[in-house]
Amino acid sequence: MNNTTGAFGGDPMLAPRYMNIPTFMRTPFADDPSDVDIGLIGVPYDNAVTNRPGARHGPREVRNASTMMRTIHHVTRVNPYSLCRVGDLGDVPLPHLFDDQAVVDDIENFYRKVAAAGVTPLTIGGDHSITYPILKALGTKQPLGLVHIDAHTDTWDQFLNTKFSHGAPFRRAVEAGVLDPKRTIQIGIRGAQNADEGWHYAQEMGMRVVFIEELTERGCAEILEETRQIIGDRPAYVTFDIDSLDPAFAPGTGTPEFGGLTPIQAQALVRGLDGLDLVGGDVVEVSPPFDHANITALAGATMAYELLCILASARSSKAE
Amino acid sequence: MNNTTGAFGGDPMLAPRYMNIPTFMRTPFADDPSDVDIGLIGVPYDNAVTNRPGARHGPREVRNASTMMRTIHHVTRVNPYSLCRVGDLGDVPLPHLFDDQAVVDDIENFYRKVAAAGVTPLTIGGDHSITYPILKALGTKQPLGLVHIDAHTDTWDQFLNTKFSHGAPFRRAVEAGVLDPKRTIQIGIRGAQNADEGWHYAQEMGMRVVFIEELTERGCAEILEETRQIIGDRPAYVTFDIDSLDPAFAPGTGTPEFGGLTPIQAQALVRGLDGLDLVGGDVVEVSPPFDHANITALAGATMAYELLCILASARSSKAE
Amino acid sequence: MNNTTGAFGGDPMLAPRYMNIPTFMRTPFADDPSDVDIGLIGVPYDNAVTNRPGARHGPREVRNASTMMRTIHHVTRVNPYSLCRVGDLGDVPLPHLFDDQAVVDDIENFYRKVAAAGVTPLTIGGDHSITYPILKALGTKQPLGLVHIDAHTDTWDQFLNTKFSHGAPFRRAVEAGVLDPKRTIQIGIRGAQNADEGWHYAQEMGMRVVFIEELTERGCAEILEETRQIIGDRPAYVTFDIDSLDPAFAPGTGTPEFGGLTPIQAQALVRGLDGLDLVGGDVVEVSPPFDHANITALAGATMAYELLCILASARSSKAE
Amino acid sequence: MNNTTGAFGGDPMLAPRYMNIPTFMRTPFADDPSDVDIGLIGVPYDNAVTNRPGARHGPREVRNASTMMRTIHHVTRVNPYSLCRVGDLGDVPLPHLFDDQAVVDDIENFYRKVAAAGVTPLTIGGDHSITYPILKALGTKQPLGLVHIDAHTDTWDQFLNTKFSHGAPFRRAVEAGVLDPKRTIQIGIRGAQNADEGWHYAQEMGMRVVFIEELTERGCAEILEETRQIIGDRPAYVTFDIDSLDPAFAPGTGTPEFGGLTPIQAQALVRGLDGLDLVGGDVVEVSPPFDHANITALAGATMAYELLCILASARSSKAE
Amino acid sequence: MNNTTGAFGGDPMLAPRYMNIPTFMRTPFADDPSDVDIGLIGVPYDNAVTNRPGARHGPREVRNASTMMRTIHHVTRVNPYSLCRVGDLGDVPLPHLFDDQAVVDDIENFYRKVAAAGVTPLTIGGDHSITYPILKALGTKQPLGLVHIDAHTDTWDQFLNTKFSHGAPFRRAVEAGVLDPKRTIQIGIRGAQNADEGWHYAQEMGMRVVFIEELTERGCAEILEETRQIIGDRPAYVTFDIDSLDPAFAPGTGTPEFGGLTPIQAQALVRGLDGLDLVGGDVVEVSPPFDHANITALAGATMAYELLCILASARSSKAE
Amino acid sequence: MNNTTGAFGGDPMLAPRYMNIPTFMRTPFADDPSDVDIGLIGVPYDNAVTNRPGARHGPREVRNASTMMRTIHHVTRVNPYSLCRVGDLGDVPLPHLFDDQAVVDDIENFYRKVAAAGVTPLTIGGDHSITYPILKALGTKQPLGLVHIDAHTDTWDQFLNTKFSHGAPFRRAVEAGVLDPKRTIQIGIRGAQNADEGWHYAQEMGMRVVFIEELTERGCAEILEETRQIIGDRPAYVTFDIDSLDPAFAPGTGTPEFGGLTPIQAQALVRGLDGLDLVGGDVVEVSPPFDHANITALAGATMAYELLCILASARSSKAE
Repeated sequence: MNNTTGAFGGDPMLAPRYMNIPTFMRTPFADDPSDVDIGLIGVPYDNAVTNRPGARHGPREVRNASTMMRTIHHVTRVNPYSLCRVGDLGDVPLPHLFDDQAVVDDIENFYRKVAAAGVTPLTIGGDHSITYPILKALGTKQPLGLVHIDAHTDTWDQFLNTKFSHGAPFRRAVEAGVLDPKRTIQIGIRGAQNADEGWHYAQEMGMRVVFIEELTERGCAEILEETRQIIGDRPAYVTFDIDSLDPAFAPGTGTPEFGGLTPIQAQALVRGLDGLDLVGGDVVEVSPPFDHANITALAGATMAYELLCILASARSSKAE
Repeated sequence: MNNTTGAFGGDPMLAPRYMNIPTFMRTPFADDPSDVDIGLIGVPYDNAVTNRPGARHGPREVRNASTMMRTIHHVTRVNPYSLCRVGDLGDVPLPHLFDDQAVVDDIENFYRKVAAAGVTPLTIGGDHSITYPILKALGTKQPLGLVHIDAHTDTWDQFLNTKFSHGAPFRRAVEAGVLDPKRTIQIGIRGAQNADEGWHYAQEMGMRVVFIEELTERGCAEILEETRQIIGDRPAYVTFDIDSLDPAFAPGTGTPEFGGLTPIQAQALVRGLDGLDLVGGDVVEVSPPFDHANITALAGATMAYELLCILASARSSKAE
Repeated sequence: MNNTTGAFGGDPMLAPRYMNIPTFMRTPFADDPSDVDIGLIGVPYDNAVTNRPGARHGPREVRNASTMMRTIHHVTRVNPYSLCRVGDLGDVPLPHLFDDQAVVDDIENFYRKVAAAGVTPLTIGGDHSITYPILKALGTKQPLGLVHIDAHTDTWDQFLNTKFSHGAPFRRAVEAGVLDPKRTIQIGIRGAQNADEGWHYAQEMGMRVVFIEELTERGCAEILEETRQIIGDRPAYVTFDIDSLDPAFAPGTGTPEFGGLTPIQAQALVRGLDGLDLVGGDVVEVSPPFDHANITALAGATMAYELLCILASARSSKAE
Repeated sequence: MNNTTGAFGGDPMLAPRYMNIPTFMRTPFADDPSDVDIGLIGVPYDNAVTNRPGARHGPREVRNASTMMRTIHHVTRVNPYSLCRVGDLGDVPLPHLFDDQAVVDDIENFYRKVAAAGVTPLTIGGDHSITYPILKALGTKQPLGLVHIDAHTDTWDQFLNTKFSHGAPFRRAVEAGVLDPKRTIQIGIRGAQNADEGWHYAQEMGMRVVFIEELTERGCAEILEETRQIIGDRPAYVTFDIDSLDPAFAPGTGTPEFGGLTPIQAQALVRGLDGLDLVGGDVVEVSPPFDHANITALAGATMAYELLCILASARSSKAE
Repeated sequence: MNNTTGAFGGDPMLAPRYMNIPTFMRTPFADDPSDVDIGLIGVPYDNAVTNRPGARHGPREVRNASTMMRTIHHVTRVNPYSLCRVGDLGDVPLPHLFDDQAVVDDIENFYRKVAAAGVTPLTIGGDHSITYPILKALGTKQPLGLVHIDAHTDTWDQFLNTKFSHGAPFRRAVEAGVLDPKRTIQIGIRGAQNADEGWHYAQEMGMRVVFIEELTERGCAEILEETRQIIGDRPAYVTFDIDSLDPAFAPGTGTPEFGGLTPIQAQALVRGLDGLDLVGGDVVEVSPPFDHANITALAGATMAYELLCILASARSSKAE
Repeated sequence: MNNTTGAFGGDPMLAPRYMNIPTFMRTPFADDPSDVDIGLIGVPYDNAVTNRPGARHGPREVRNASTMMRTIHHVTRVNPYSLCRVGDLGDVPLPHLFDDQAVVDDIENFYRKVAAAGVTPLTIGGDHSITYPILKALGTKQPLGLVHIDAHTDTWDQFLNTKFSHGAPFRRAVEAGVLDPKRTIQIGIRGAQNADEGWHYAQEMGMRVVFIEELTERGCAEILEETRQIIGDRPAYVTFDIDSLDPAFAPGTGTPEFGGLTPIQAQALVRGLDGLDLVGGDVVEVSPPFDHANITALAGATMAYELLCILASARSSKAE
């Protein structure tokens, strides 16, 4: 939001980064999804966490930090804004906040409209439970492939009697037939568990689980090669949990796990997805109350920018 | 900014406070000043500080904290939004950021347009230097009276060869003929000085300087009685420097002075201005990098809400 | 928890404050409620908040800060530990965390057992929603009187379709017949509202609402005199919301309101309840993720100690 | 420390506050005590604390914050620098850091030299144990009177077998014959105790103990009147423990006690000592690791400036 | 500590991580060492530091963070709790806190009892000086080997006249005949020194010193191979100083050194010790006052969990 | 600054690190440049930043953190203090703070005097704009080579009408003929740009730009080999922007860019410059208001120590 028309050459991107009302990436606010090709969307919800809360504040602080993002990627020299119309679609309204089934439905319905408008959604959470209804909306026609970068497999069944905790979205998505476990790869997994149920489910269903030790050993390039083989040329979604990063790089999160990805690995993993048929993506679990100097929000904003570039590339290459 | 039409009864004020893109007080963003009666405006500028910087980040963080504000005042039961159309006019564009004279001109020109549209401006700084160009724009027809709540008189002449430091705006405004020093009262002044120049200028020009000790001794009610006599029934402006508060209540500021106002005193002082012919107001010197848990931004937002109520009251009573 | 038998004269209270595993006030952990007269209980629950979360971490950090508490009160010279057996009963188990009605039931059942054992409960929250089930357990025989120190009346009806938000407990308690609104006084209320529903309900039901301005004007002694008249000599409960304090004294809370109580007022208000027939009390809404240097947790621990002293006094005077 | 000769009119006080190497109050570093009338001295020692450490970092951070101090007092218009030669004598060297008796001796010897040079010392701690050796050095000829502003009486006997804890200095000083308990007043005392030994000792020896409740009730003016009667016209020392302030105003300290002095009270208490025969003073217990935005260090620096003004006034009036 | 029997399947490990009173790893508190095979022990002592204090608060905050630990290791799939009885033995009582020789004796005596009960101790400090008395207790029968991961060799002789500083424990242990320098390897050493005494002592005595540059160059696997050769099959102890990590991963420590280990290296180094005859271990120098978002405490807790796994493995393999 | 003569063997380096007034590296303050071979100089200026301010506080906090530095380098065993006379020359006085051209002139003139005295300057900023006037002073006789470690090329032309922003110094220096672009290498460059102008200028002028991805791919040794070839044996300057480090290692900076150097890479890059004919160096963009636990200041101090070692080595090898 800005009234800088005239100033800064009429381009809000050129205003100093601390000026104006922060939309995601300083893109225009869009009331109508059909005004954009890629829609940046916030889901300020964290009632599904099992430990520290705060991810409800994620969309706002990532918007704030995202004004530090710019246009031309320094490696690929891609400018996603020249490939696609990009706008901020605001936050998903959640008027049934205390009813977890209704929240799932509200999110799903919002994304059904976004998808119906032909928009590629790029979402900022919120806790990881939100990816389940997004997948439900995007995977209706056919189950999607999934590139899942995270410290946890998020394939638990129940947690204290709920099926919608942030530890369960990918199990729910498989059950709902919107996620193809055999076209799923989970990268960066680590940390002890009280039960091996989650690991087992992932592996039994045919998900490829790459623990952090394997990534360290084999390197990003090899894992990316395997990722491309697993995903193939059919539609896929990419979900980036900020707790995949080591806590030093992302202290502001609810379930930090020591010994995680470096930023350079995270960027390499996302950049390496270029060429896949990506239909959407998200960055989740940024919890600002545990952040300092906004470094986690900046990490989230930067990873969202990286996702934006590959989504723009995927979309524009399909359009050709 | 929000797309909650339909949800929350169609009223963005009723969405949970952490949702949606934060405009000031969750009011609609207004491209055109003529859409509003009272315009909330940010001036993200702090190049004029003499000590710690950071007030450039003030408008954004006060917008953030202001989503915790609501509509009906608990004492007066006034709802300013039922009295006036209120909107967020965004930030003043500052394309000549490194030329302090040009910044003064850019701010002045912006407020001339706001004033020409008949809008009462309520501003969030930025450092205190920004009040000078605002007064220049609003005081053209006749010099304004001033209620000035602050730790410092801000009536220095020069600081390191600049005439536009945040320690000088009220001297500049008197010199420019837009501020009537005899209709000026400064409340909460304290702290040692290296030269008594600033105190002397204020007193020689006939400004009423109320040091914190006098306020403590006599109480807000008496000082307000005197304020009303000094201001009279002609137009006046009110400027609230967050450093008037004790640093415990407002750590996020550039020149904290131990031994300041309490929140209850600050609220009483602003509420007591009801009935004056107020043509505008501001809250300045919120410096988020020195804040914690956003308490200074919340103080700024709350004081802005208090100002909004008396500005709405002043404007609506004149309209009757 | 400690193994200091032998050291420190065998008295864990005399160990340096940073040593040992922190139970509330360094009291012994008690598996069996019947081992104590006054039971300190944590309720780590914040799913009912309407804004910033984090109070789920309150019991742990208040336990931590409470090791700075000592035994003999400096004003009354009362040592509550010489009047009563005091112990830490641990946290209420909440195995149905995501079902708000079940949480209400689980808390209520826990306190029914505590009450059945003849124990006076002193609770640390958790958000304010937890007071409703506690009142349900304690007010079965007759509706209780209530001394309620808070920034908010917490008498809303619904919030986003839930009846159990932290803004509703005292309306629910009146409806359940466990709270006598005519023997209820709410002190420190302030802050704008989007609807006057909450204020109206309180006043229509006959609750005495003391806004902060009235407290400032009349002083604690007068308000306490009125409190004693309202409560009379029948059983009453006291609930202290940490957001009654100004945010400078208690930044770590979910819904801070500028312009609140000072610590000295808060202490005076609680100490002034001595002599009432108090059957329990709580300190709620300490949210550690927004705290700094643990000052909010220390405020919570100190107010809990003040409550402990008057509860011990009430209990021991009845025993005589 | 600065090389600004020529710039800023040759006056380091006029450089921006963040420039140059911070000595106390931006005064010149003095190798030789005889170059000054009032010597500002750091004692970076905290091995005697009973709870949270960190006061060893106090002198450095108070020096840092003290560059925000200026020259002319806004109430008295006294400029201490025009009355006395003021300099920074550096930190007391403590080469036997781990031997508490030797530390006492080293500090005492340092202050004996300072006193022998005719210098009035103004000290920044360090924990409160350091006041004992200072009193030993200054009270040799006759026992001194004492104005002691603090949350605690610091009159314990032993703590875990040491006689030199920060809870004991004034008992040790009475025993050493350098402090006159009957000319001692302790103001701001509060907080529960595990034993009433400390309170008893103070009262039995004839010290006047003003608990915070009495101060609140009677006000600073009455207490100051009594203070002047107690101290009389013989030499006295003034010691200001930063934990006398409420934790909101001074979170950075080792033993915070809820419900303390306000800054305005603290300033009034020190300013009211003008006219006494003060031979030295100190500000202790600033613990930077628990501070935020340096507000505790600023509080310490401001109180040190207030002390400097009355010490300069006392010294110059005697010189007349 | 918890009263969740019945809830969470009767298993406190399954309660949400923020619930209940935090013992180390959520294990049962054990009054009697003979109830456990591996005893988790806190030593809240930091009087021996040469720079920033605060490690006295380490055991409490590591207990707090350790509730985020779970049972089954994600690499080895070892569950240490199924191999051994593990409990929290509380903190070592230190009633002679201000007498460093007595502290050494008190710690040694405590561990002698632990050892006599056949318990393998896993300790959380506290500064590194505490490892000397632990080694004295464990190395009585024969000098132990040592795997020492740290930024510093801690082989100084004296520091300001004390022989018990946290820079000296391994020199003292060699002198006491409880540490075999030729079976000692120090990994991660770095940072300038004012004297090369410490490096020389280590090397002259035959300790193997692996500077961080050598580790970077050669990698963990090679260093581990050498470690196993140095230690051989006789008993050894492992000590992990949190400052071995780079300050970004462990800001909360007293003597941070830029350019340190990554978490992945630290984990690899500890995991690689599996198979050695380990008789105990510790994690030291976590200083919470300098931490943020508890990431250092989490690092400490995670490394303690890693140590727990190899100690359990060592103990159970010996039992077979 | 210290008065420890006699104590600590008369060597201020041996005092505990938190004692005494912090000069850079605890070196003596030098009024007269001719007293030193290498002069440590602060430039507390940040008016030229384009985003977050605060680097004006850099020199003071780096001085503070630099007291943790010691003398003998652990890899090279070089003690720079035995090679050269090193002192703290204080801060550059900036009496025309609000006139950016005058600031450039004042800095240049200061360094001309330093250079005229034959001193090698090692500077702590301040924002990166300060390197331009330093190069002007040092590159008068012949254009210098440059080793530039940074996230940004800083080769923009104008920013909001100023030619002196912190994004422009190296373009200005080339234009002024004091920097040889063909003997310039920029290492660590990354982050999106709104225009490719800066990258293009660098490359068109013949500067060697090593993006972070190339550094990651090829490693420091190869890049250093190329650096030595580019610089050759003629005079060169080295400038280290703290934002070259990843934000986790250096959160306290104005324009953080995710995905940066590790400390070990940064140290390797600087150490690898040994043997070049280095005539000066700087560490810039440390912004303390965004730091935590002083880790960025410590990073800055450590990198300054590394630079000191190679400057001392360069200077002493030339002297031979």
